[in-house]
Amino acid sequence: MELEFLGTGAGTPGKFRNVTSVALKLLDETNDVWLFDCGEATQHQILRTNLRPRKIDKIFITHLHGDHIFGLPGFLSSRSFQGGDGKLTIYGPRGIKDFVLTSLKISDTRLGYKIDFHELDNDGEILNNDKFIVRAEKLDHRILSFGYRIEEKAHQGELQVEKLKEMNIPSGPVYGRLKRGETVTLQDGRIINGKDFVGKPQSGRIVTILGDTRRIDSIESLAKDADVLVHESTFGKNEGKLARNYYHSTNMQAASVAKKVHVKELLLTHISARYTAKMAKELERDAKQVFANTKVVKDFDVINIPMGK
Amino acid sequence: MELEFLGTGAGTPGKFRNVTSVALKLLDETNDVWLFDCGEATQHQILRTNLRPRKIDKIFITHLHGDHIFGLPGFLSSRSFQGGDGKLTIYGPRGIKDFVLTSLKISDTRLGYKIDFHELDNDGEILNNDKFIVRAEKLDHRILSFGYRIEEKAHQGELQVEKLKEMNIPSGPVYGRLKRGETVTLQDGRIINGKDFVGKPQSGRIVTILGDTRRIDSIESLAKDADVLVHESTFGKNEGKLARNYYHSTNMQAASVAKKVHVKELLLTHISARYTAKMAKELERDAKQVFANTKVVKDFDVINIPMGK
Ligand SMILES: [Zn+2]
Ligand SMILES: [Zn+2]
Repeated sequence: MELEFLGTGAGTPGKFRNVTSVALKLLDETNDVWLFDCGEATQHQILRTNLRPRKIDKIFITHLHGDHIFGLPGFLSSRSFQGGDGKLTIYGPRGIKDFVLTSLKISDTRLGYKIDFHELDNDGEILNNDKFIVRAEKLDHRILSFGYRIEEKAHQGELQVEKLKEMNIPSGPVYGRLKRGETVTLQDGRIINGKDFVGKPQSGRIVTILGDTRRIDSIESLAKDADVLVHESTFGKNEGKLARNYYHSTNMQAASVAKKVHVKELLLTHISARYTAKMAKELERDAKQVFANTKVVKDFDVINIPMGK
Repeated sequence: MELEFLGTGAGTPGKFRNVTSVALKLLDETNDVWLFDCGEATQHQILRTNLRPRKIDKIFITHLHGDHIFGLPGFLSSRSFQGGDGKLTIYGPRGIKDFVLTSLKISDTRLGYKIDFHELDNDGEILNNDKFIVRAEKLDHRILSFGYRIEEKAHQGELQVEKLKEMNIPSGPVYGRLKRGETVTLQDGRIINGKDFVGKPQSGRIVTILGDTRRIDSIESLAKDADVLVHESTFGKNEGKLARNYYHSTNMQAASVAKKVHVKELLLTHISARYTAKMAKELERDAKQVFANTKVVKDFDVINIPMGK
């Protein structure tokens, strides 16, 4: 599980940061990739990575501002042109479907795959499969903006095969039943409880990715105990008032929420072009005073998210 | 008068060529810039040039395929964000207005300037001011596609000041009247015909920029005697059948029309990503066999268009 940042800038593209998009690579988990936001030229950024558009089967849009969605029509077209034929699901605030369908219709684009739209109006669980639960909650931006909490389900404990072998329990279908925790009567009459032979389940990882937002309580429920929190940081230490006026956050607000809800790692993004590389380092340094494990990400940064201990 | 190519690729962006856009720089003529087509990431390309979005006051769209329009919403937003407040006029096939307005509305984008839309259904003169006449004609593509012929009006002849001075005609308002070709009676009684003191008018330049198209006769009227013809070349020498099937042209078709209608310079663009830099040179070499003054353009090429002799 990795995050690959495709665009880490705010508002308009600059020479050094493109507008927002980040890929959650689940190649080991489900062999696909989820995209969060798709600012203009996201497909151009993808050309400079190993990501393959056809592997992207879910796109989550945080909000409908242009710097988060204007790359979508082009990405969708190129995914088709490059032979992508698997279904794609798009989650996002109501309106995203109209934008995509209007763009495709007017440009006479026919995709070689189906799109499922899940338009969001409210907080709620939006996905629940055998590996992941995704929850969306409203933030506080000028327009409807969502944060997404991606919870990986616990990894089942391993069957302790060595221990079974020592007890001369022959392998076969019975191992499967034991692994599921069933109680089994062997042919020799012994009664074995699977639960005694299965290791502890390992809890899954939590990744929280926020849209543009002011400081608001829903960030806390979204980010609680997250392995990684991706938080906007459009403004710096002494710009709390500006941040509030423009419906954005400061680096310090992000750091304080990360500390409060026991996040493991904080990634600051949506960095204004006003900030030079040196100033972006200052954003990071200031935030670290409050929450040590903070990083201001750059385009093409790859962040590994290991299983917890 | 210069053309600056911002994207010279076909269909989808590649590592070396972006999708279509070309700027006609009229800085000496009217101090503004016209943009022809606006594929995704055109604004990103502009960041790498000296062009200023606020200087662009007219955009001409050849057709509504995504590789020619998906950069428009982002460009328009950034033009506003960067302080552009002058009116912008967009010419293009019917549907362009719906695309732009839907994109701006859904993304809640408010521009600091007004857009005038001129939606085209048919051939005709679309602009006629004191310096230029622009005419649009239909081409032959899968969807409605236009070519644009930009004719600069003749430059008035220069007033031969030296000759007037030799004849002891004192400078003053009279010079203006003479320049306009009027006949003037001087205070000393001499009668002077302005026409005798004004050099020959210099004919203006003609630039023809085509959208994607098959070979069709309207190209000839659009390109007749043009100083520069910008022609798509999606296919190569032995691909006439493919070109026809996909509603595109070959390099050879472009060269033969350039020759037939006495174009001065042929610029080939809309080059498929199938062509490496070396193969693109071959496209050029082959076309030169038919029309010597041919060039396959690359992104960021600047082509000067001097006044004719
Ligand atoms: Zn934003
Ligand atoms: Zn095209």
